[in-house]
Amino acid sequence: MGVAVLDEVLEHVPAERVLRDPAVTAGLSADQAVWAPVGVPLAVVRARSAEEVRAVVAACYRHGVPVVPRGAGTGLSGGANATDGCIVLGLDRMDAVVEINALERLAVVQPGVVNDDLRAAVAEHGLWYPPDPASSPWSTIGGNVATNAGGLRCVKYGVTRDYVLELEVVTGTGELVRLGRRTAKGVAGFDLAGLMVGSEGALGIVTEVTVRLRPLPPPAVTVAGHFDSLVDAGSAVRAVGAAGITPAALELVDRHCLQAVDAWKNMGLSVGAEAVLLARVDEPGATGEAIADRIVECFETAGAGWAARSTDAAEAEALFAARRLAYPALERLGPVLTEDVCVPKEHVPEMLGRIEKLAAGYDLTIANIAHAGDGNLHPLIIVAPGDDDARVRAQAAFEEILDAAIFLGGTVTGEHGVGLLKRGGLEREMAPEVLAMHRAVKAALDPRGILNPGKVFDPVGQSTE
Amino acid sequence: MGVAVLDEVLEHVPAERVLRDPAVTAGLSADQAVWAPVGVPLAVVRARSAEEVRAVVAACYRHGVPVVPRGAGTGLSGGANATDGCIVLGLDRMDAVVEINALERLAVVQPGVVNDDLRAAVAEHGLWYPPDPASSPWSTIGGNVATNAGGLRCVKYGVTRDYVLELEVVTGTGELVRLGRRTAKGVAGFDLAGLMVGSEGALGIVTEVTVRLRPLPPPAVTVAGHFDSLVDAGSAVRAVGAAGITPAALELVDRHCLQAVDAWKNMGLSVGAEAVLLARVDEPGATGEAIADRIVECFETAGAGWAARSTDAAEAEALFAARRLAYPALERLGPVLTEDVCVPKEHVPEMLGRIEKLAAGYDLTIANIAHAGDGNLHPLIIVAPGDDDARVRAQAAFEEILDAAIFLGGTVTGEHGVGLLKRGGLEREMAPEVLAMHRAVKAALDPRGILNPGKVFDPVGQSTE
Repeated sequence: MGVAVLDEVLEHVPAERVLRDPAVTAGLSADQAVWAPVGVPLAVVRARSAEEVRAVVAACYRHGVPVVPRGAGTGLSGGANATDGCIVLGLDRMDAVVEINALERLAVVQPGVVNDDLRAAVAEHGLWYPPDPASSPWSTIGGNVATNAGGLRCVKYGVTRDYVLELEVVTGTGELVRLGRRTAKGVAGFDLAGLMVGSEGALGIVTEVTVRLRPLPPPAVTVAGHFDSLVDAGSAVRAVGAAGITPAALELVDRHCLQAVDAWKNMGLSVGAEAVLLARVDEPGATGEAIADRIVECFETAGAGWAARSTDAAEAEALFAARRLAYPALERLGPVLTEDVCVPKEHVPEMLGRIEKLAAGYDLTIANIAHAGDGNLHPLIIVAPGDDDARVRAQAAFEEILDAAIFLGGTVTGEHGVGLLKRGGLEREMAPEVLAMHRAVKAALDPRGILNPGKVFDPVGQSTE
Repeated sequence: MGVAVLDEVLEHVPAERVLRDPAVTAGLSADQAVWAPVGVPLAVVRARSAEEVRAVVAACYRHGVPVVPRGAGTGLSGGANATDGCIVLGLDRMDAVVEINALERLAVVQPGVVNDDLRAAVAEHGLWYPPDPASSPWSTIGGNVATNAGGLRCVKYGVTRDYVLELEVVTGTGELVRLGRRTAKGVAGFDLAGLMVGSEGALGIVTEVTVRLRPLPPPAVTVAGHFDSLVDAGSAVRAVGAAGITPAALELVDRHCLQAVDAWKNMGLSVGAEAVLLARVDEPGATGEAIADRIVECFETAGAGWAARSTDAAEAEALFAARRLAYPALERLGPVLTEDVCVPKEHVPEMLGRIEKLAAGYDLTIANIAHAGDGNLHPLIIVAPGDDDARVRAQAAFEEILDAAIFLGGTVTGEHGVGLLKRGGLEREMAPEVLAMHRAVKAALDPRGILNPGKVFDPVGQSTE
């Protein structure tokens, strides 16, 4: 079977982009979720065109071979991990910006365009693509679409799904189709483009993305606050929401993260606080300054030891740069098990308190970075390399954090996707009837079950039916 | 069959809300699309609770009886029209505002809540629900969700889908489920809540809606412009877009509409212009006034005979009120065949020109109202009652307008839905492979084909496969 499908693939893709050397393919068979299982692929195909993607999927459809799509491999849930005998379909070489249209305020890009590169390209036209996952220097738009990626600006500007107008997709039966539209509005047929966003490659493989753009925002004002407790910082987040303020970003970084960044980059960040909140306000002029001052008040009322509007743009930029470096800095300390829970704003303090208690109870280091203004928390469980007992405790704590988020009316994943790591959590979050709807939709659009099988949920599992 | 299903329904719904008198049910069997065919229902059930909806759909599922959901019946495409032997399921009595949460900025409502009533309820909390179809004094949130309703503010604030967080839905198999979530972000599973929005009752029946809210916007500045030609007004719309301006509304009303409103309400609107553009700007203070002045410039450059920022709030309000009255005013003149095409902004002048030529070529009166800033045009074809020859010409012009929109890269429906009137247009807009995906998703979620069958597309049609 393996040989037959590859013979067909080689009719459409040059041999130098059909990689079979296990030493090479191993490096392209997993994302950044180091705790998730990884299979051995038949081959990694690095596609250069939608037609090649179509031909590969069509061959896999005929032979019943799984296809695992892959962008930059920066995912944090195992969604791009190979399954045994699959073809990993690399899309990072499809990296052309096809069109930037200032009048319609849209851009058309191939899936392998890096998030920051899209932002830089449209900035030349005075335009802006807001979704900015912390991985924006590396992650691709295709991967962003697959996980409905969020980021720092989502609290005001929304997530990837809010910016996807049209998609070119290869379906589970190997057909190349266009879904959605270029117009501002449209309700001709079901929203299948929206359905693809966040479907983690399980319903189709994206070969082109048309995104909505906005005008560049005005320069931002930054507010920083230092807190002696995580829960106080959470209360400050709730207070900002209760004051009716929508900041352009509201990020939390805890002591573990600041220390890890400092130890790596020597940025002089270790302020002695348990948690730092960083807010950005991008309303123009005096309006923005007044909002920033109200955020300072919210921070102080919630118990900040220190809070101020930054008067130094370079300093403010350094704080946000440190926040973006937190994840790679922590990875240097040991395997990181990454959470991505999202809870209603009102429950942010309670959720942070529960995470602290679980860290103490399981005797684990759990660092916290958070898009706190969204209620989207990233507790990061860090285990010393080789400490197998801690690994077991970490996995138990991971599941308890998922359960706490569900209990507080939240979700197990805000922006990373379910992948492999949160399949159990998804089954606990979702009613059996809703999971059955997922299986029905999956079977309808991927009748042979070849598209990233086993990610998100078990397509044929019986556990919840 | 009909009797058996009603016996079951009557076990769950009191007889006084199961209407069978044809004189009564006829008045609840059609929406405002007077050109669309209407069937004769078995009964109209006026549900009071999600449990009643579940019981009715479950009974219909067992007996294979079609269910046609209905809100206020203000639809413009025949989406709520009865099919023979169906149960019309009226949801307008489910009109409770369940929760308004200022901290989370959301409201939970039953589907029968009228759009304007939701806006008024949340305004008491300083909050705002932006989507405002011109039918907002009458249309319900459930119907707005079914058609992904737009309105005047969409050009800046987006459509219904951008505000739907969570839905309670009765599925095609008669199960009551919750889809989506209350949190700001979430990617646990497929976006089935988004899939329901705009699905015109063909994938599920909405029994509760959780909507995202925004803070109330600042008071708006209005700009009006008078144009001697429709195409010039279209060029002004394109010029506003090219200037990078996002108005809070940008509406076009033509001479036919102004005259019809004047004839009805004697508002003194008939300015002698062929078309009037109305723009709203809601940036605060001097910023807003500067943007308004730039819109005046765009209007003048595009050939406006007169353009000015309104200094009189009452006058500005009257102009927008007239725009909202245009549709009912035209209905007084004869049966209106309503278009809802949406084209890229750059093609608004060309599309308006084509509509004018078609009106002349077919010797028809075609009035134009438009959410012009969205490229969403509502050419309204008016035929004198009893003029059968004109009816035939109107139907031909209707299809040609759809084709022109498709040719210009647009869609046959921006915000009204396909319903019955635009099924032919949908088949011409959509690739056969995409229509096949629609049929597969429909079959997956509505296996017996009981949910609003025959709307949007023919579930078992062969014409395009």
